[in-house]
Amino acid sequence: MKALVLEETNTPLIYKEVEHPLESVGHQIVELRAAALNHRDVWIRKGQYARIKLPVILGSDGAGFAGDRPVIINPGMQWGDRMDVQGDDFHILGMPTNGTFAQRVSVPDNQIYDMPEHLSFEEAASIPLAGVTAWRAVVTQGQVKPTDRVLITGIGGGVAQWAMQFALSKGAHVSVTSGTPAKLERAMQAGAHGGYDYHDVEWTKHAREEGGFDLVIDGAGSTGLAQVMKICNPGARLVIYGGTAGPIPALSPQVLFWKQLHIIGSTMGSPSDFQDMITWIRDQRIVPILDRVFPLEEGSAAFDRMSEGLQFGKIILQIPA
Amino acid sequence: MKALVLEETNTPLIYKEVEHPLESVGHQIVELRAAALNHRDVWIRKGQYARIKLPVILGSDGAGFAGDRPVIINPGMQWGDRMDVQGDDFHILGMPTNGTFAQRVSVPDNQIYDMPEHLSFEEAASIPLAGVTAWRAVVTQGQVKPTDRVLITGIGGGVAQWAMQFALSKGAHVSVTSGTPAKLERAMQAGAHGGYDYHDVEWTKHAREEGGFDLVIDGAGSTGLAQVMKICNPGARLVIYGGTAGPIPALSPQVLFWKQLHIIGSTMGSPSDFQDMITWIRDQRIVPILDRVFPLEEGSAAFDRMSEGLQFGKIILQIPA
Repeated sequence: MKALVLEETNTPLIYKEVEHPLESVGHQIVELRAAALNHRDVWIRKGQYARIKLPVILGSDGAGFAGDRPVIINPGMQWGDRMDVQGDDFHILGMPTNGTFAQRVSVPDNQIYDMPEHLSFEEAASIPLAGVTAWRAVVTQGQVKPTDRVLITGIGGGVAQWAMQFALSKGAHVSVTSGTPAKLERAMQAGAHGGYDYHDVEWTKHAREEGGFDLVIDGAGSTGLAQVMKICNPGARLVIYGGTAGPIPALSPQVLFWKQLHIIGSTMGSPSDFQDMITWIRDQRIVPILDRVFPLEEGSAAFDRMSEGLQFGKIILQIPA
Repeated sequence: MKALVLEETNTPLIYKEVEHPLESVGHQIVELRAAALNHRDVWIRKGQYARIKLPVILGSDGAGFAGDRPVIINPGMQWGDRMDVQGDDFHILGMPTNGTFAQRVSVPDNQIYDMPEHLSFEEAASIPLAGVTAWRAVVTQGQVKPTDRVLITGIGGGVAQWAMQFALSKGAHVSVTSGTPAKLERAMQAGAHGGYDYHDVEWTKHAREEGGFDLVIDGAGSTGLAQVMKICNPGARLVIYGGTAGPIPALSPQVLFWKQLHIIGSTMGSPSDFQDMITWIRDQRIVPILDRVFPLEEGSAAFDRMSEGLQFGKIILQIPA
């Protein structure tokens, strides 16, 4: 079969013929039709990830056929018994085990879910990792309500976009931030009610005057979060799913306890988060936002696009039958 | 009636004859038999509080008779409709309105609760403000479970001691910290399973080896909290009810999201927190920890004792009939 293989970090991925995955008990072979990129893939290629084992077929997100059944794959493996946190054996498809940037992948039976009927394979492939991370952040941990004023920071990212779509579909008032005006515009077109350019030194002042926030979904950390805390309404929840911008500096315990804020760490999602998300996407007929579709053999160009950070929506790899 | 009056900040309280509180519709006069000190009273006397109005009778905690019914007073006034956070009109008895360091106080009907029968007035007076703050932190926000390993920092404080008693009565494994070995010993005598002197540079190492923590109740903030976060178990909740030690420095978003920690601000408690706490104390026959009982007229000496920070348990004022 054809696959996109990472043989050495910091080198382009190689599109090549590799062995089929082996059949094994309790596993199924999924014939992939589409996959999607995540920052995780880019970080692994750059060597910025723990315990990298090479060579490997990257890719956590995929959709295709299990037999003649259209399916998507839940890439969060061995979550464990507790719903509030993943166990020690938790890991993600596509390192150390081979992932979805290939014609076939072997995954445990219980990682396979029916694909929502209204979606193409390309659209479905955009869901798994970013989608479940956003779902857990917004719904399971953030407990979004229709009356909430929601802020989603860094709307360029895949998790942020899914978070926006889930919060909108739950009936909340949704604002977003970005450093790129074009991304703010795209978000408004997709239904966001407000957008703030975080280069504008007065953005928090405007946001506060416009009513503050009851729920914040943030993947950056750093000073941005400390600023945002000040414009949170009493009882607000701040859900943190990433820390790309670095440590969160000096938080005021007084603001935290007097406003009874909740700062909640969230990562990926449990099997029930995944099932609930798929059901919601199907029932609400939510259509994912795609940036661009590349053929699998042009995977290296897709990685370059992601590294540049210019995308809005998920970057998809189309996989030949 | 006799009362302890603050006429000017940074001067001793004056024990003197004052006018009876006025009868008014929807209010009751409670004939107080005991009151308790809180740090709030000390801070107001020192002028370290917002919007101080003088002269005032201080005191948030009190127990006595409403008619011939033994009662305790809930000092959290006008909490509001939301259970997750207090409203804008929320305030605490004993500034700006006259408080419990007097023979009588006028309070709204719905602030009065039956006193648990197994307690003396002195014991009952030790409950309200510290008790409800601890109850909300440990139970309502912290959702303590019998399987939890709980850490309560700064066991000298009134909230910390109530938190310890509530967590123990819920069946949890409870450890405490203090900078004073004698207080650690007292806590162990009162049932705590472990105690750490935070001057010991290796205390977090020991605590981690002994199993870490699932729930942390902290009133200090600062570097202590950042240290403690590192020895929290996955899924742990850190409830912050105060910030006496200053801002919380640089938190790692990675630790926060990967462990799916919850950092929760908590302050005082709602009317239902108060009712639930009183019911629990009555049903479990919990006996408060008292430090020392002063007659009301020696109130100034009681304030000095609290300022010195030597107490273990609540400092009580006995009020003459």
